[in-house]
Amino acid sequence: MTNAMDAASLNAFMMAEFPQVARDFRVERVAPMEADVRMLIGENHLRPGGTVSGPSMFTLGDLAMYAVLLGMIGPVALAVTTNANIDFLRKPEAGRDLIGAARLLKLGKTLAVGDVLIRNEGSDDVLARASMTYAIPPRR
Amino acid sequence: MTNAMDAASLNAFMMAEFPQVARDFRVERVAPMEADVRMLIGENHLRPGGTVSGPSMFTLGDLAMYAVLLGMIGPVALAVTTNANIDFLRKPEAGRDLIGAARLLKLGKTLAVGDVLIRNEGSDDVLARASMTYAIPPRR
Amino acid sequence: MTNAMDAASLNAFMMAEFPQVARDFRVERVAPMEADVRMLIGENHLRPGGTVSGPSMFTLGDLAMYAVLLGMIGPVALAVTTNANIDFLRKPEAGRDLIGAARLLKLGKTLAVGDVLIRNEGSDDVLARASMTYAIPPRR
Amino acid sequence: MTNAMDAASLNAFMMAEFPQVARDFRVERVAPMEADVRMLIGENHLRPGGTVSGPSMFTLGDLAMYAVLLGMIGPVALAVTTNANIDFLRKPEAGRDLIGAARLLKLGKTLAVGDVLIRNEGSDDVLARASMTYAIPPRR
Repeated sequence: MTNAMDAASLNAFMMAEFPQVARDFRVERVAPMEADVRMLIGENHLRPGGTVSGPSMFTLGDLAMYAVLLGMIGPVALAVTTNANIDFLRKPEAGRDLIGAARLLKLGKTLAVGDVLIRNEGSDDVLARASMTYAIPPRR
Repeated sequence: MTNAMDAASLNAFMMAEFPQVARDFRVERVAPMEADVRMLIGENHLRPGGTVSGPSMFTLGDLAMYAVLLGMIGPVALAVTTNANIDFLRKPEAGRDLIGAARLLKLGKTLAVGDVLIRNEGSDDVLARASMTYAIPPRR
Repeated sequence: MTNAMDAASLNAFMMAEFPQVARDFRVERVAPMEADVRMLIGENHLRPGGTVSGPSMFTLGDLAMYAVLLGMIGPVALAVTTNANIDFLRKPEAGRDLIGAARLLKLGKTLAVGDVLIRNEGSDDVLARASMTYAIPPRR
Repeated sequence: MTNAMDAASLNAFMMAEFPQVARDFRVERVAPMEADVRMLIGENHLRPGGTVSGPSMFTLGDLAMYAVLLGMIGPVALAVTTNANIDFLRKPEAGRDLIGAARLLKLGKTLAVGDVLIRNEGSDDVLARASMTYAIPPRR
């Protein structure tokens, strides 16, 4: 099993397709059925008390799953999330980036399913656990 | 069963606590165990093609659940989402506001569970279905 | 929108296809995009203390969703559950049947999504809330 | 971090508390925050075609999570599932046992969250992925 895109290609593709979102994220590692994505935490992701908001963590889970999927099937902009389930387990620390570690559990013709563990950089504690299903459009 | 806060109080509370998020939302209706919340769609919520992004719909689901909960228990800023599950069913139409209709199914001492149906204003089609669990901090 | 099967046809079909499961269930009502299914509670569904087990409520949610789906598309035995999310909210009362009220939120060509509220017969309290996604096999 | 119960104690406890369910399951391995549970597949778990039913896999996920939790906190019979989310990815093979590999991601005072990967014995393919939340009753 090999990757269709590497981290640099994924970053370039996402910056071209979703510039306003992608500037806050970096694909850091791609491997068969795996990808790690960093979220560069800025003021706009924070809630009172300095914690990262739930929707920001949802966005990281969604993008990490998108990265692992495109890393396998190549640049398919129209893959869309059909289901997301997320458990929020611990408060993120203020002022530290988040890392979303995604793995694909099934890559079918029309559906891909995987999960993502979100941690603060350099910490083992899982802050959130997400599972995501993407629908893959028919190939031309 | 009566409400602890009405729509105007909820809007004022959320604007005071989360100004950068709350300006995009309006609590429109509060009833026992129910609330409707409008999302004022702007450029920053859109993806290419003019559709509203998944994280934006997640945010609406989260806020609608927060509104129905606070409408029952009053202004408890520290209630936090512990689980969210969302099915994305149809693409939103560009340029129309979204309405999230939330209902509480259980209001316990420490956990509240409800669900939210998200539609375009004036349409019956459900765009997304979310269930949400909130943890309620111990009262003083 | 009309139904492809009524309650009697659904009961006959499920009894023919899944006799060991179906004998504990009765489709009681079918309407466009809706179905109510009764679970006849017996000893084998109970946990210590007389409460109905989680897996039994899962089975009811799954069958109620199957009933509402087949009520719309007709007898497609190979429709399979791809995702289930269930919140357990209250303990069922011992010795009373359960009713699962299912509604379809989306009936697509390949996927159907709906949710189910489970209550004790004659009670308004929701015991469990389930959302279910079914994959529909390609029609011949 | 050490375990409060080993596999033999867990099997004895579950057989005493839930004899009609536990006879189909064996806790095979317990480690800090981890447990593997075998489901002994019999006729009553099968659907037409010889595949294991969704509710049977749900039961395995639920029991594997219960085992990993009690392996950490000891014999607390009243821990109850509050949320379960399960993705069904592939059809199980007929006539082979299932193994549920559970890990705890958070063990709090009142809530425990983990996930379970279900495979056929001797296979790497994930058949189902479940996340589970348990509520832990207050200790005496």
